[in-house]
Amino acid sequence: MTTAVPMNLIDGIEADTLDVRDRGIMYGDGVFRTCAMRGARIPHWGRQYSKLAADCDAINIVCPPAQALESDIALIAARDADCVVRITVTRGAGARGYAIPTVARPRRIVSTSALPVYPSDSYTHGVRLHLCEIRLALQPKLAGIKHLNRLEQVLARSEWTDSASPEGLMRDARGNVICGTMSNLFIIEGNALLTPALDECGVAGVQRDRVLDLARERGIDCRIAALDLQRVLAADGVFLVNSVIGLWPVAQIARERCKQAALTSHIQEWLKA
Amino acid sequence: MTTAVPMNLIDGIEADTLDVRDRGIMYGDGVFRTCAMRGARIPHWGRQYSKLAADCDAINIVCPPAQALESDIALIAARDADCVVRITVTRGAGARGYAIPTVARPRRIVSTSALPVYPSDSYTHGVRLHLCEIRLALQPKLAGIKHLNRLEQVLARSEWTDSASPEGLMRDARGNVICGTMSNLFIIEGNALLTPALDECGVAGVQRDRVLDLARERGIDCRIAALDLQRVLAADGVFLVNSVIGLWPVAQIARERCKQAALTSHIQEWLKA
Repeated sequence: MTTAVPMNLIDGIEADTLDVRDRGIMYGDGVFRTCAMRGARIPHWGRQYSKLAADCDAINIVCPPAQALESDIALIAARDADCVVRITVTRGAGARGYAIPTVARPRRIVSTSALPVYPSDSYTHGVRLHLCEIRLALQPKLAGIKHLNRLEQVLARSEWTDSASPEGLMRDARGNVICGTMSNLFIIEGNALLTPALDECGVAGVQRDRVLDLARERGIDCRIAALDLQRVLAADGVFLVNSVIGLWPVAQIARERCKQAALTSHIQEWLKA
Repeated sequence: MTTAVPMNLIDGIEADTLDVRDRGIMYGDGVFRTCAMRGARIPHWGRQYSKLAADCDAINIVCPPAQALESDIALIAARDADCVVRITVTRGAGARGYAIPTVARPRRIVSTSALPVYPSDSYTHGVRLHLCEIRLALQPKLAGIKHLNRLEQVLARSEWTDSASPEGLMRDARGNVICGTMSNLFIIEGNALLTPALDECGVAGVQRDRVLDLARERGIDCRIAALDLQRVLAADGVFLVNSVIGLWPVAQIARERCKQAALTSHIQEWLKA
């Protein structure tokens, strides 16, 4: 846990408050990234920025240049070398109404918070997942994007308070398993690695892409597929990834135990390297 | 168009900026109302507050007391007797993460903007609607609520720029017609008044409730139904309502002309009375 005071930069300037008419507040009109900074660096920054730019593009926001964000990150690194960095890009302020202002100037918000410390057991033995009741709605036009409309995740995360479950598993309206509330899911079947298709809902995270790339480089058969709960429960291994937690094997989903695969530990190591 | 300077009250204090860590910004974690103030009064304030409270309750936010909002509104009325008043309630600030903070203190934001002036023709001849491509995702847990996750509406509204269409018609993932981007829809079939069911998507507005109450009081057969586009196009009358516009008859949807029903004008008058 870092002890540095959290810091916020809005368009590069230290500030703790934002224009109350920003469309990020009014409509959730923006996107974000949550990155871990370690040793004054954001690992895989190139991928993080590419994803931010792609998400901005998907909802027609002009992404701030990489250089602007990199100078924000340098300011933060000088103050707090190990922290969570959230990067938000909103469409900026505008007149009331859903129409995108012709003069909208996107706004970048870079905020730090303490790196969470998770039990080492979560990385070795694995985690227990709450099985969320709320289903992810199917919206192809927003699927894959890490946008600011996150009420489904807020409601999902409010379903349980038991600290023994650090994460919840989410299904879509059809019943397919999609992701954790804050993480992407993989399963192992024999020698194959599978992860849910995210073309109708869910967030396609940077760590998910890294897992797929690392596995493919090693000749592992990787598949994007529709996965129902029975298939996940029957898998030879199940794990979750995101940029802050890294990789958590899944030991249990609700009351069902999951199998553990050696490949999970290998991928955990590849991600760290 | 009023000329008063827009005003923002955050928890009753005039302020133009909001805590950048408010969950309204981070996750769209909040709800809102858009009301017209006319002659220093918000018509049907009781209904507006009830809906705000119900929406807060639906996502487990403690709604600010009516008295607090009424004193905000009085402050605004003294400055600008005729304006649009947007009331936003967010879950307040909290640590990063979807989990609802145990100490979250909801925040109320009351902002004014100029009352729009619409062509009188929109009220007599009716309006032409763009038929939106983007479909409303089905999410029963959030349906009916006017929450801050409004990217679907932002994307819908960005589909057209032709000022001849002041509103767009939205369908859900099944193809049923649900609403305008900022308004509720009614159709007339013979002597019956129909409006789409909003139990899977859409916002159940105050003006929609008023129309249903006013029509029922007069013995009109009112039905909540699934309405596909063919049925809307074949209707004897089609109209849109919200608290700022009042009632607009629909003259045309994309290239299809709509019929005009005398009942539409009657309801327009009842709403004004």
